[in-house]
Amino acid sequence: MEKLKLKSIYSEFRPDLEYIERELNRSVHSESPMLEGACLALIGSGGKRIRPVFTLLASKFGDYNPAITAKAAVPLELIHMASLVHDDVIDDADLRRGERTVKSMYGNHAAMYVGDFLLGRSLEIIGELEDPEIHRVLSQTMIEICVGEIIQIEDKFATEQNLRDYLRRIKRKTALLIASSCELGGLVAGADPQTVRKLKRFGYYVGMSFQITDDLLDFTGTEKQLGKPAGGDLLSGNITLPAIIGLRDPGLRPKLLDALEGRMSTEDVVQLLGSMKDSEAIRESVRISDRYLEKALREAESLPDIPDRDSLIRIAKFIGKRKF
Amino acid sequence: MEKLKLKSIYSEFRPDLEYIERELNRSVHSESPMLEGACLALIGSGGKRIRPVFTLLASKFGDYNPAITAKAAVPLELIHMASLVHDDVIDDADLRRGERTVKSMYGNHAAMYVGDFLLGRSLEIIGELEDPEIHRVLSQTMIEICVGEIIQIEDKFATEQNLRDYLRRIKRKTALLIASSCELGGLVAGADPQTVRKLKRFGYYVGMSFQITDDLLDFTGTEKQLGKPAGGDLLSGNITLPAIIGLRDPGLRPKLLDALEGRMSTEDVVQLLGSMKDSEAIRESVRISDRYLEKALREAESLPDIPDRDSLIRIAKFIGKRKF
Repeated sequence: MEKLKLKSIYSEFRPDLEYIERELNRSVHSESPMLEGACLALIGSGGKRIRPVFTLLASKFGDYNPAITAKAAVPLELIHMASLVHDDVIDDADLRRGERTVKSMYGNHAAMYVGDFLLGRSLEIIGELEDPEIHRVLSQTMIEICVGEIIQIEDKFATEQNLRDYLRRIKRKTALLIASSCELGGLVAGADPQTVRKLKRFGYYVGMSFQITDDLLDFTGTEKQLGKPAGGDLLSGNITLPAIIGLRDPGLRPKLLDALEGRMSTEDVVQLLGSMKDSEAIRESVRISDRYLEKALREAESLPDIPDRDSLIRIAKFIGKRKF
Repeated sequence: MEKLKLKSIYSEFRPDLEYIERELNRSVHSESPMLEGACLALIGSGGKRIRPVFTLLASKFGDYNPAITAKAAVPLELIHMASLVHDDVIDDADLRRGERTVKSMYGNHAAMYVGDFLLGRSLEIIGELEDPEIHRVLSQTMIEICVGEIIQIEDKFATEQNLRDYLRRIKRKTALLIASSCELGGLVAGADPQTVRKLKRFGYYVGMSFQITDDLLDFTGTEKQLGKPAGGDLLSGNITLPAIIGLRDPGLRPKLLDALEGRMSTEDVVQLLGSMKDSEAIRESVRISDRYLEKALREAESLPDIPDRDSLIRIAKFIGKRKF
């Protein structure tokens, strides 16, 4: 149902997206059949392609040229894919979006180098773009993602962290890559500086709302919706927004601490997730996500009035409200 | 003894190397203490700095400027360090050069992102260099390293592989990065194209000899020399030159197959390494390494006659003949 909705929004610019998809496939060509096979399987397993879509739409605010837009969209998506592959190595994950991971098909060592290869290809494509500003944005984005992941490790099991710690972390982990996708789309198309700044801010706010929604779904989603069991963040010590707020609630706190410290059976976790579902922790998290979404929409509405602006707004709304 | 020898060769250009070392330390600055600490520990644990030394010496064949040379040497060394950190995650290695690995100090997840962070910083510094040729060389090098690692996985336990398979693999895994270190040193200093080509070939031949020597040492070195137990390649199914040649010897073949297929006790492995030591397999491997070293020396001797040419030659000889 909801996947259909996203598909229908995307249908308006399907040829452009298909072009990017072909370029993505082409970018992982290698004489090693294992390497190319692993990358193609990864690309083929889909995902929402949120970042390329934003790069594409942002490009429409300048002089749109599909080939040039792809040169920004493809490396960004490769960086994103590399981080997924590396996450799966570490999380020892066999499934992602219901499909087998590179790690589970080819082993940890291969997955590690598939990720590094994707970063290398990304670097190669970036090298074809001559604007040093673009290099700066892309390398900064990659660094910040890594710093975000490291801070996430440092903050693991830190039950006394506050909202600010969480927001700082998801900014780096997620929001900056989406902000960069929007910024670079405008930049490569030569959009005016004010528009580029607005696009970047729009992407940042959407990204924050996107990650909070993601973290909410880990509490409220079903295994079928998520493609993996719910509660994973909690059980691995990754303290996200609903947990931070829930830890302030004397009714939830002891149970959350038990779950975080591995003192809880699978059954009890399912029960805890159930009692979280209609808690203030979840409602407050939804409100915070909504506030970012509103800021994103306000930013979008201040952009030049072209048809693609509506698509940006519809995708932002979809992302902030999605159920998978 | 031998470490002293390398130190004495390096002493001639110590201030330049110290400058690169400072730039390396500076390049990993981060507001995350864990991240910066892990990187500084990694840099501090040393290594022979073969690649920066080659970049430095190659730069002397043009207009030498330490700051510009460092901009090529630092990202190359960061790429190299990233691949070491990622290898340690996969190999589950707790020690490297007798020091604790990032993985053992901070865990797998952190080590993964420390590696990715190093690649990101590398990309950032490369971005400051404007010559697109330099971007091309660096991204190609990174890609080839990954392809080399993946092919190494594909070739694992493949007992029927030949010399060509092995040479193709180590070219990508090791020789290209050293070739690029030499090539980029010349390139950033504006050395003439013929000299740059010679430097690249020199680096390639040295790199081949370097890796063959490394693979030999895994058979002939002591745990003290290697900083880890000998025989690791064999036991992990990584079939290197001495094993490829040894598999052709009817006396060694059954034992090598037993070791490769995990049917051998630790004691028997020690015995096998002992009987390899004065085998034709080892002698032939040494001869092949020496042949690459000779080609490297011939290439070096055809370079313009400046004092640094002698340093290149002395380091090449040292690398090809080293015992650790």
